[in-house]
Amino acid sequence: MPNITLIGTGTIGLSWCAVHLRDPTNRITIYDPREDLVPYIKSLLPQYLSSSISSPATPSIETLLSNGTITLAKTLDSACTPETYILQEQTPENPLGKQVLWSNIVPLLPETCHLWTSTSGIPASTQAQNLSASAKARLLVVHPFNPPHILPLIEIVPSPDTSAGEVAFAMDYWKGREGHTPILVKKETKGFVANRLAFALFREACKLVADGVVGVKEVDEVLEESLGVRWAVKGPFASYHDGGGEGANGGLKGLLGKVGGTIDEVWKDGMGGKEGLKGGWEDAVVGQTEEVYGSVTKRGLWERDWVTRRVLEVRGEER
Amino acid sequence: MPNITLIGTGTIGLSWCAVHLRDPTNRITIYDPREDLVPYIKSLLPQYLSSSISSPATPSIETLLSNGTITLAKTLDSACTPETYILQEQTPENPLGKQVLWSNIVPLLPETCHLWTSTSGIPASTQAQNLSASAKARLLVVHPFNPPHILPLIEIVPSPDTSAGEVAFAMDYWKGREGHTPILVKKETKGFVANRLAFALFREACKLVADGVVGVKEVDEVLEESLGVRWAVKGPFASYHDGGGEGANGGLKGLLGKVGGTIDEVWKDGMGGKEGLKGGWEDAVVGQTEEVYGSVTKRGLWERDWVTRRVLEVRGEER
Repeated sequence: MPNITLIGTGTIGLSWCAVHLRDPTNRITIYDPREDLVPYIKSLLPQYLSSSISSPATPSIETLLSNGTITLAKTLDSACTPETYILQEQTPENPLGKQVLWSNIVPLLPETCHLWTSTSGIPASTQAQNLSASAKARLLVVHPFNPPHILPLIEIVPSPDTSAGEVAFAMDYWKGREGHTPILVKKETKGFVANRLAFALFREACKLVADGVVGVKEVDEVLEESLGVRWAVKGPFASYHDGGGEGANGGLKGLLGKVGGTIDEVWKDGMGGKEGLKGGWEDAVVGQTEEVYGSVTKRGLWERDWVTRRVLEVRGEER
Repeated sequence: MPNITLIGTGTIGLSWCAVHLRDPTNRITIYDPREDLVPYIKSLLPQYLSSSISSPATPSIETLLSNGTITLAKTLDSACTPETYILQEQTPENPLGKQVLWSNIVPLLPETCHLWTSTSGIPASTQAQNLSASAKARLLVVHPFNPPHILPLIEIVPSPDTSAGEVAFAMDYWKGREGHTPILVKKETKGFVANRLAFALFREACKLVADGVVGVKEVDEVLEESLGVRWAVKGPFASYHDGGGEGANGGLKGLLGKVGGTIDEVWKDGMGGKEGLKGGWEDAVVGQTEEVYGSVTKRGLWERDWVTRRVLEVRGEER
């Protein structure tokens, strides 16, 4: 039975635990030095399990702890056994701390153990600096979007030393699990992808509020009542592609032909960077978008609107 | 009965028509010089009505045209009558064209007519340059998010000359209509708010693709599987506030205390601008966020996760 060890069970670590409990064959070992670990797990884990996607009826926490599904390790060393199949760490975001952690535990783990870090910003290459080539090849970032038991995205970010086999293992592992969508980040970029995109929008949001154009509440309403719902159904490239309409003169190319100038102007208005659409990005994104999505169709637009409407309806019902 | 005149019925104009048809007391006059106007309306409007929010059973287009619910004006002049209550224009995005339009039609309209432009970028102050003070006071931007018969957001952007009464009229008008959320944009900013926020994210998306960090499809998946769904449920300020957790040390202030440095670093990494969180924006956005949302609660987090899960479920069913 696959033994998964979680080092650190803050919000993310405990949410991973809920995720792993969906597969009843998993055995989970937890190491977390917090003194109130048992009451903490008992108070929070049931809430995570109840708002999680449908899974086999989960036994009570007492049962999970007594029947060996969850083991609470008393020491870091005892959490790392020759049976550990995957080790996932959620320790504080500190490069030195993570380096020391890996140096301590890698020798205790089997030579085949998959080494996953949930870091939101410390690259695998930094964390693995003092490790052997074998360990470097097995360590990569498996970064969820909080909370992982609810949101599907998982960013897989290898270092240049991570082996192709380990990347494939992590991608396949999450593709095979309902409710998760792994994406491969090909270069170690500060903040990876989701946070970079979010921070770019957040920067403009802060600026608009600080400049008195709108308030915090209005920014949130804009996202909730337009962009968020739109992007929940189709991401920005697909959406702008749709926005350009049908036919050979439509799609993203058609749209940028019409509003590309405005986009560039807005980018120059406080969004920084001398690079821009017309400076060369346009061809790359248009080419890929056409390759991925083909031509825009009436049927596709109708489906987008239908799903959007259903999302708005269910949100209205549940709010 | 309120007579609404639509000048220009491209995608946006015809979608407004579907919106106005939800209220069976409305009488709609359309002026659009396209030669295939009747077949165009007959082919597209039923699709808009069928994917629109629930509305009283709509008669066929033939009936709407024959019973006077929709009137197709043969000339621009005949579309502007002493009975026109609201005039909404969706003509091509050209400052001079819009100025000429308003100069031509304002004299034909009653002195009380509400003058709404659907422009995505030409401020009311530019459009109204040659008008009388009375007309300037009545002209403002009523900018939908495409398509307006599906997505709730409407940006209300007055010029400095627009009267407070006209702003209040437009805000109340849309607040009173199911399926719409107006937000007031207090300053005429290039691109208003929704597009500025979208363009900021889109810039980073183009950059990540051009740099080979991820492809177009991965960017879209990131939005669809994390940020889009998250922001469809709660906008960025509310979400980061939640992210900081409960208690006096939590919320947005707590979150920025932990990751504000990283955010500033990412902003400096190609997102331009010397201004930043620590340069002064932090206090403004934290203060407003606390005022608007109060403290983060366990119950609030659970509700967020519940609605998020339902949105993901219905999207999965409909896809």
